[in-house]
Amino acid sequence: MVKLLRLFAVAAALAASAAATMATADGPPPEALAAAASGLGQKALNDPAAFDFVASLTTEIGQRLAGTDAHRRAVTWAEARLKAAGFDNVHSEPFTLRAWIRGTESADIVAPVPQHLAITTLGGSVATDAEGIEAEIALFHSYDELLAAAPGSLTGKIAVVTQRMVRAQDGSGYGAANAIRRAGPSEAAKRGAVAYLLRSLGTDSHRLPHTGALNYMDNAPRIPAAALAIPDAEQLERLAALGPVRIKLVLTPTVADNAPSWNVVGEVRGSERPDEIVLIGGHLDSWDLGTGATDDGAGVAIAFGAARLIAALPQRPRRTIRLVLFGAEEMDFSGAAYAGAHQAETAGIVVAGEADFGARNVYAIQLPPGAAPSDFGQLLQRAIAPLGAILDRRAALGGGDDIRDLQKAGVPAISLRQDGMDYFDIHHTADDTLDKIDPRQLNQAVAVWSVFTYLAAASDVDFRSLATPAK
Amino acid sequence: MVKLLRLFAVAAALAASAAATMATADGPPPEALAAAASGLGQKALNDPAAFDFVASLTTEIGQRLAGTDAHRRAVTWAEARLKAAGFDNVHSEPFTLRAWIRGTESADIVAPVPQHLAITTLGGSVATDAEGIEAEIALFHSYDELLAAAPGSLTGKIAVVTQRMVRAQDGSGYGAANAIRRAGPSEAAKRGAVAYLLRSLGTDSHRLPHTGALNYMDNAPRIPAAALAIPDAEQLERLAALGPVRIKLVLTPTVADNAPSWNVVGEVRGSERPDEIVLIGGHLDSWDLGTGATDDGAGVAIAFGAARLIAALPQRPRRTIRLVLFGAEEMDFSGAAYAGAHQAETAGIVVAGEADFGARNVYAIQLPPGAAPSDFGQLLQRAIAPLGAILDRRAALGGGDDIRDLQKAGVPAISLRQDGMDYFDIHHTADDTLDKIDPRQLNQAVAVWSVFTYLAAASDVDFRSLATPAK
Repeated sequence: MVKLLRLFAVAAALAASAAATMATADGPPPEALAAAASGLGQKALNDPAAFDFVASLTTEIGQRLAGTDAHRRAVTWAEARLKAAGFDNVHSEPFTLRAWIRGTESADIVAPVPQHLAITTLGGSVATDAEGIEAEIALFHSYDELLAAAPGSLTGKIAVVTQRMVRAQDGSGYGAANAIRRAGPSEAAKRGAVAYLLRSLGTDSHRLPHTGALNYMDNAPRIPAAALAIPDAEQLERLAALGPVRIKLVLTPTVADNAPSWNVVGEVRGSERPDEIVLIGGHLDSWDLGTGATDDGAGVAIAFGAARLIAALPQRPRRTIRLVLFGAEEMDFSGAAYAGAHQAETAGIVVAGEADFGARNVYAIQLPPGAAPSDFGQLLQRAIAPLGAILDRRAALGGGDDIRDLQKAGVPAISLRQDGMDYFDIHHTADDTLDKIDPRQLNQAVAVWSVFTYLAAASDVDFRSLATPAK
Repeated sequence: MVKLLRLFAVAAALAASAAATMATADGPPPEALAAAASGLGQKALNDPAAFDFVASLTTEIGQRLAGTDAHRRAVTWAEARLKAAGFDNVHSEPFTLRAWIRGTESADIVAPVPQHLAITTLGGSVATDAEGIEAEIALFHSYDELLAAAPGSLTGKIAVVTQRMVRAQDGSGYGAANAIRRAGPSEAAKRGAVAYLLRSLGTDSHRLPHTGALNYMDNAPRIPAAALAIPDAEQLERLAALGPVRIKLVLTPTVADNAPSWNVVGEVRGSERPDEIVLIGGHLDSWDLGTGATDDGAGVAIAFGAARLIAALPQRPRRTIRLVLFGAEEMDFSGAAYAGAHQAETAGIVVAGEADFGARNVYAIQLPPGAAPSDFGQLLQRAIAPLGAILDRRAALGGGDDIRDLQKAGVPAISLRQDGMDYFDIHHTADDTLDKIDPRQLNQAVAVWSVFTYLAAASDVDFRSLATPAK
């Protein structure tokens, strides 16, 4: 039936959701599933494997910016780890990206008095000249103020946006502020600016700026762009209130086209329906400033830990669990590469999810549309309650950056919501290091992921059919 | 009587304590003192002057390392501020120091895998060659382990000490660890080491290393020394447990002999006994990494705020309040310079204290020996209780680094104990910036300082006589 299903799906992907409906009658009884899932969750709480995974990755490899030798070492390391842990079909799937490599970076106030500023270049930024750019700043307390500035009004200036990012458990403050970093450089350039600085998208108050990617627009000059540490943004606000401020900025990043990367894959092959795939993962690449502990060493460790526990069960679930350690999330390349290479099996992917929101506990699960009130949803809710997690009645909007292209191709996505109250304190900074991970909270996340993953792989749940219930 | 007293004291400083005993009968009644002190304390809680002072200093000047142009600017700024606030006799007293100027600084693990380390040069460290030092590390988890290493056992190695500093409200964890930074470089050099790294003396877990001065010994080669950020020290511990680790270290500090500095002075001249001096202060110089907000912008702001409130009273206290903003505390030069220049008036200094422990609330006052149970002590205790501070029955050991030489010359010292639970999270780091100061807590410290200073200046208390009670 699976092969038939796959052929059908490839031929008529748009109609797949109804066609993929599977009978639930032949699955294991819910009580047996619940008992096995519960046992897994409890075991996960005391399993050192996930923490060991991220400790080893961040210690023995450290940062692993996509397209660099460090990431290549991480790929080799990950393949060995997955093989040693008993995963099936361990391999790496190559793709290329436009790699961006940080150079020197410095910013100094030159007037009214010399002061050093803590900044970091935005990923994708062009370089300044070797001698740098020196100019007066035009400071905007909000992004809307920048957008309201007239064309030409920033000519020759360094535009500075100091809008604050809101702290929110679900990370929504980041989404609301993201355009300031992504689009701000081009918006400033359209108005004549020669460079762009933003208050870091972060919720801390440390002299450790937050990097992250920008996206230049085609209709604007490409100007150098960097993020100010939050105390430095506030310092500029105070100084700008007193009079003109001049800054000298030196950024010397470089670019390597067609740099190699890999999505690392390992599987727990299904015992009955191996071509039906529950895809979980995280991203192995990281920014270069810290050691990528919470972003996303923790995520790959959580997905690894959950899949590994299931692999060690006396009886494997009927469907295949596929663990994918994506290779260029921060640069927005690996999700598209993966989806592009796996178009033919999209219909066989039952569900996909990515752990990419830190190392803290999962407090809620969001399922694909229609699934929360289903039998599966109710079973899941009971299984995760003892772990301190709830089933969110709202459907998952996205399953992670690397899952987005699979979703576009019709794959149902889940979102396991981790507590992100302090995630953006260290996100994309030099401070993203192992000491920030609490092994107990990490293990709770492994537990919830293992419960969900097991139930999805051991049951017959068909999220596509739940999204469009029979009339 | 005051002149007679001073002559006597100069002639027989060692006998001064008994001779300086003054009758308390002719002072203002205790109820009047208590009422005035209480009013001052309440006013201080809502006075923006101290926060404005430190905000302006850290914004308009920024860091102000002793011996640099930045400190010179701070001196000019401070004189103008003190004059504008109505202080008498505002002036700056010059002295010279051996200034130490940070250069470039970097440390990278070169084996087993390349990784960048967050470090900062210790103040006073010699430089490496321009191309740096590359060597294997010898890692010690405690300072005692380093001291137990045999002579020659570290030949050609970079010694690394990763002992943890203990968090304590009164800062005692710093004193207990201080030798690791001060003496560690020479102890390592005696054993053959070519360079020295320590885990920062700090209680945080950020990638922001803590600088601070070292003291080379005469009987050991001078080797370059730096502090590792705490996550980096832990990373080295993990890596060293796996095998040999090689590090490349580049430090290029320079030194300027006979660099100029100044102790800035302003007074609230006493109405009856102007030659009796209550000396309070902080230090205007700072380390160069942050903007010297809590160390010691807050301290000079607290002392300034307290003295200024007293200056604004309708009736000035009988004794002189002398505010001293010391000019090279971090390099250990200003206290000796001040005491040396003021030997002739030592006996006229009733008491001295320095605010140099951050920006948080004062929870206890320690008086000179014998003073806690005195009438003055009891009066003070009642006056500070509403502010949330207690009188510590233990005598003050020290009144601050800049007061030490005055103490040695016989000046009684007080210690206003501020809450230091998180003081060493940012102490001597780039993170010592204005955002770390809570104006409410700062004002509480101003309130307690103003109460103490007022009572000492308005009463006849003689701490010298209390230290040696009549038999």
